[in-house]
Amino acid sequence: MDADKRRQLRDAFGAFMTGVTVVTTNDAQGQPIGFTANSFSSVSLDPALLLVSIDKRSANFDNFTQCPHFAINILAEQQKETSNIFAQKIADRFSLVKWRKGEFSTPLLDDSSAWFECAMHQVVDAGDHAILIGKVEQFESCGTPGLGYYRGAYFTPYQNAESLIAGPNVVVSALIESAGQALVVKKESGYGLPSQTVNNRSVSETLKQVFDGLNIEASPGFVYSIWEDRQKKQQHIVFLCAQPTGSTLPAVQQGEWVDVHALAQLPVPDSAWKSLVDRFIRENAVGNYGLYYGDEVEGSVRHFFTPSHQEVV
Amino acid sequence: MDADKRRQLRDAFGAFMTGVTVVTTNDAQGQPIGFTANSFSSVSLDPALLLVSIDKRSANFDNFTQCPHFAINILAEQQKETSNIFAQKIADRFSLVKWRKGEFSTPLLDDSSAWFECAMHQVVDAGDHAILIGKVEQFESCGTPGLGYYRGAYFTPYQNAESLIAGPNVVVSALIESAGQALVVKKESGYGLPSQTVNNRSVSETLKQVFDGLNIEASPGFVYSIWEDRQKKQQHIVFLCAQPTGSTLPAVQQGEWVDVHALAQLPVPDSAWKSLVDRFIRENAVGNYGLYYGDEVEGSVRHFFTPSHQEVV
Repeated sequence: MDADKRRQLRDAFGAFMTGVTVVTTNDAQGQPIGFTANSFSSVSLDPALLLVSIDKRSANFDNFTQCPHFAINILAEQQKETSNIFAQKIADRFSLVKWRKGEFSTPLLDDSSAWFECAMHQVVDAGDHAILIGKVEQFESCGTPGLGYYRGAYFTPYQNAESLIAGPNVVVSALIESAGQALVVKKESGYGLPSQTVNNRSVSETLKQVFDGLNIEASPGFVYSIWEDRQKKQQHIVFLCAQPTGSTLPAVQQGEWVDVHALAQLPVPDSAWKSLVDRFIRENAVGNYGLYYGDEVEGSVRHFFTPSHQEVV
Repeated sequence: MDADKRRQLRDAFGAFMTGVTVVTTNDAQGQPIGFTANSFSSVSLDPALLLVSIDKRSANFDNFTQCPHFAINILAEQQKETSNIFAQKIADRFSLVKWRKGEFSTPLLDDSSAWFECAMHQVVDAGDHAILIGKVEQFESCGTPGLGYYRGAYFTPYQNAESLIAGPNVVVSALIESAGQALVVKKESGYGLPSQTVNNRSVSETLKQVFDGLNIEASPGFVYSIWEDRQKKQQHIVFLCAQPTGSTLPAVQQGEWVDVHALAQLPVPDSAWKSLVDRFIRENAVGNYGLYYGDEVEGSVRHFFTPSHQEVV
């Protein structure tokens, strides 16, 4: 492959957007080591497997292919600098970030959006890289918005939205999904999402007030939907928000947790809300680990997960 | 693993954002088959390898693990419906989309952001999925913005930005990178990016005029940077734009193609532009296939790609 073709291939690979991870372990002397990678993918739910590719020219190639455990830290929007640190040749990278050791002694970076401690499951030789397949032993998701990488550059969809949204007539709503349940509030005209008008506050402040009003722990996420209410001259912006791993679905005074697939049965105020709900139900089944309600997987696995919460309407 | 833990793991995996692909091949009868997947990752540049995971419960598991060739179609923002079609159990999915056969007879979806035709390289058993590793035989990137998937929902950063940006005092600029070169224009105060004021047009119309003015083929991409010029009371928004695979770097009257790593030497009008350039150079080396200028890979591989264009300043 000539140099031109190789650059073109690199650009074409870059057409698939990704998050950014820092992969960590300890070397033979017990010192923490790590590198930035966007070649991560989840693989299997049961057993819990994930993978990441490592360049054979990496100085730490042997350490990573022979380690008993490694960790994947999925970076949050605020961690651009962390990504840069672990992508450059810097003497003591770990002195520049806050970190701790996990249960399996792998270095976990503070403030990551999520982390996974893995036992090495398999190393697959693959061209100029090796694929590390890890079995997830411990994990945690913090719900904070993730840093994106696309066409050779970071992108930060939540921060961008925050910078672009302004004005007294903007209503922000929170679409909060957790463990297959979505939080809805009963309004005069039917069920809707918890929301507030931005007024002169920032979007983050406004969403924080929404969460505080519900007394739940959640983080704002990406813009999911935007529409104009021409009668009321309002712009509606829906943010997809997330809760940390293991957080309960608290019985909220002003809202109800509803199974995502039961959302379609709720009375709704208007067609904008109806179309948003239908879209969310459909998309929620798309990913690698959708619940597969009648999708391309054979047979019905509707009860793949048994409901374990009583808040379901 | 109990159902709660499994849901939590699924949510944690969802903290890594991805693009969306449709994986296609032909069954034993020569009929096109395909499924939606976000478990894609590029693996190796030389040889050119990529991977995608397939659920063992898939109706087409045997067809995909035994096929000689398969294709990866990376979906564009406009292809949400295509993603839904290939994620659901629908009788004749291919009658609902426009497609053609590639050189290796794999089905390629029209209007994808990029596609790769692959020879099967290896199938790796991995828990409830199998990992298909493909050797890229043919590929093309169209430069159009990609559809994103994050926390169980699509997101469309470019469309969102287009919906949120308005006002006469918004200046949009195009950061166009192609094969390691970026397009800059000489202005009175130093080098900058090609740009125009939005006025009452849409962002897409404005960027199209920027491209037309340069007489180049390019697509608008994600928001890369936002800042306020308080003196001029202008909001500056920089879009990361892309050219299709194989497009030349035409000698543009109003601009110059500059090697990304040479951008730092250009005289610049102000600190906002300086910081943008420095950031872009740094980030461009982060990905799996960065050029590794002094990063964590051992040794200097500065000449990994030999320059083949004469337009370099």
